[in-house]
This record gives sequence, structure tokens and C-alpha cells, in this order.
Amino acid sequence: MTAGIAGPDVAGRNNLLWARNRADDPLKPNAWNPVVETLLSHRSIRAYDARPLPAGTLELLVAAAQSASSSSNLQTWSVVAVEDERRKARLSELAANQKFIRQASLFMVWLADLSRIQHLADERQLKLEGLEFLETLFLGIIDAALAAQNAVIALESLGLASVYVGAIRNKPEQVAAELRLPPQCLHFRTQRRLCRSGGTNRDQTAA
Amino acid sequence: MTAGIAGPDVAGRNNLLWARNRADDPLKPNAWNPVVETLLSHRSIRAYDARPLPAGTLELLVAAAQSASSSSNLQTWSVVAVEDERRKARLSELAANQKFIRQASLFMVWLADLSRIQHLADERQLKLEGLEFLETLFLGIIDAALAAQNAVIALESLGLASVYVGAIRNKPEQVAAELRLPPQCLHFRTQRRLCRSGGTNRDQTAA
Repeated sequence: MTAGIAGPDVAGRNNLLWARNRADDPLKPNAWNPVVETLLSHRSIRAYDARPLPAGTLELLVAAAQSASSSSNLQTWSVVAVEDERRKARLSELAANQKFIRQASLFMVWLADLSRIQHLADERQLKLEGLEFLETLFLGIIDAALAAQNAVIALESLGLASVYVGAIRNKPEQVAAELRLPPQCLHFRTQRRLCRSGGTNRDQTAA
Repeated sequence: MTAGIAGPDVAGRNNLLWARNRADDPLKPNAWNPVVETLLSHRSIRAYDARPLPAGTLELLVAAAQSASSSSNLQTWSVVAVEDERRKARLSELAANQKFIRQASLFMVWLADLSRIQHLADERQLKLEGLEFLETLFLGIIDAALAAQNAVIALESLGLASVYVGAIRNKPEQVAAELRLPPQCLHFRTQRRLCRSGGTNRDQTAA
């Protein structure tokens, strides 16, 4: 239609744009590409099948997450990837008992994690200032959100699906105990994926 | 190399993955596509040229932002797109006087915005509960961060560049006054783009 439009499916593109503004005069962008199409095609999915996650997928999602901006490059976030069935069941109970948490092969708990920079400071016998400020917690929450969103975009581009689970914040102390989180670490939101356990029961922390 | 890899540039892919884990045994994903490549190619850019932003770009970025998940679909965020030179200069002064804010044609201020649901409740003469909880502010900050990150991914896919500017939180009251923000609205982080003013001086709020 317009120079610069990539891809043949102009009708599909127009449907995606209409869904965003529902105007009689829809957006007519002069640029379009597979990335924009992935972003505008987002859906939160709350039912999962049992297909295993292809090998290397988790690592690729974490690499995508690590590619997001981080305030002052402090990287004040972590993620715990939960694949163990019993742990998923316990976390599901702590998060409004939503059954899709048990159903999904992978449940990722995104953490605003100030313990990382505290650990680095302790190693160097340095005193950190400002860690107790609300602003610093905001920083960790924002860093974690940016990272998590990158992972969501990546997994959707791979044909997988997910949903954010805010209810993981319902019982913060119990979730922290279940995941053996250090102090100064707040799980802010989780997310699970059509992730299809690869048979391993690893719980790993990245970033 | 492996079935499922799209695109010919395996060396480029491997460089991007190496940059994330710097391991002797680099990631060998069994999937790759332009979306993942865009995510892993992210760079924060702090110098901009004067080329104007193509028409429709801002609207497309906002559509991408609106496509992100929102907790309980409350959509507790807004964004102010600042293109006016004098306003950019004043905001730059309030954000550690970083000159690239003046240089960029577009400066987007992302807001955790609880005033939206308050406004809707007022219209319906309903009483909202919980708006004053810290948890509700977290919700707005996370919603805004997810939306902003979608915009960043979209703009990078279009060949544009940006950086997050946390310093916009240095002087919250002054920034709120400059942008005439309503109460219950916290600008949490801004971002400017190689955005190339289209000659208009519009300041608009979206979402």
C-alpha cells in the first residue's frame, strides 16, 4: 500500500491496528515489519498443552531478557525458572490457585533483586547507600519488567505463549520462602509459558 | 547450522549470543528470527541527528505500547510525547541537564497513571478501593514499563534509537507541573528517540 511496508498481508496489518484504536480512520503506518507484527499480535494465554519446550529455549529467553535496558547498568533483577511439578503446584496455591500455573511446563518468577548489588558490595567491603530507598525498589521493579517483557516478545516470536501472573504477589513471604530468595529480593510478577518441560527439573536463577 | 534457524547470518547471531553470556561454550539456540535478533541487538543511544520522524511513527509506537499486557486490563499508564523544543529544554534541565534530551526530536514521558481509573470511577460515581496502596503503584509502574519496552522494541525494529532516562524522576513535582499532570500520576521513566520532529509541536497523551 505504502512504500516501506514489508510483508504481503496488508489486511492482517490493518486488523491489528484497528484493534488498537477502533477508529473509523485507522492508522496508516508507513512502516511495518515482523517485529511490529509480533508486538501487535500479543495475546495473554491461560491454557497450555504438554508439548516439551525445545532445547535451548529458556536460555534464549533469558538472553533476550538480559538484552533489555537496565538503569545505570545495575541489572537489579533476577529470574527463577520453575519446572519442578511440585514446586509449580505450591506456587500455584500461593497465587490464587490458578491451575494454568501447574499446567504450563515453565513458570518464570521475575524478581526485583537488590541483593545482587549488595552481594557485590559485600565482596568488596564497600558500603552501599540508598538501597533502602523506595526509588531503588522502583528501579529494580522497572528493570525486571523491561527484562520480562523482552522474554515475552521473544517467546511469542517463537510461537509460544504466556501470561503475566500478578497474583504471585499475593503472599510475598511464602513465595520467597518457597524459592529460598535472599533478603532484598522482591518477586514482582510471574509469568508462565507454553513451555513444555524438557524433562529436567532444574530451578535456575539467571542474570 | 541447526534446523529451525531463520536467516543466513549465523556469525552475527553467534556474536549477539556471545555478548550475552561470554562463555567458551556459547548458546546454540535451535530457533532464531528477526524479532530475537532485534531484541539481542539492543543498544542505548545518547546522540541523535536531526532527521524528522517519518509520519505515523509515533502512532505506531503507541500502538505497540498499547499491545503490552496490563494487569487486570486496568491500563494504569499513560505517555506524554514531547516535541516542543522549549518544553524539551525545560525537561532536560529537570533531568540532570542531559543534552541529548534537547537533541532528540521526540521525548516520551511514561507515566504510572492511576488517575485514569479514578476518572472512570468518578464518572460512574463509584468508590475505588486500594488506589492508595503501594501495590497499586507497583501495578502502574509495571504496566508503564511493559508498554515502554514494547515501544523501544518497535522503534529499534524501525531503525530508530532511544535511551531510558531515569533522571526524569529526579524532580517529580517540577516535571508534573511542567507536563500539567493530574494527581495520582507518576512519571516513572522517560525515553527519547531519534525521533525527528515532524514539524508539529504536539504534546499528546495516549493510552
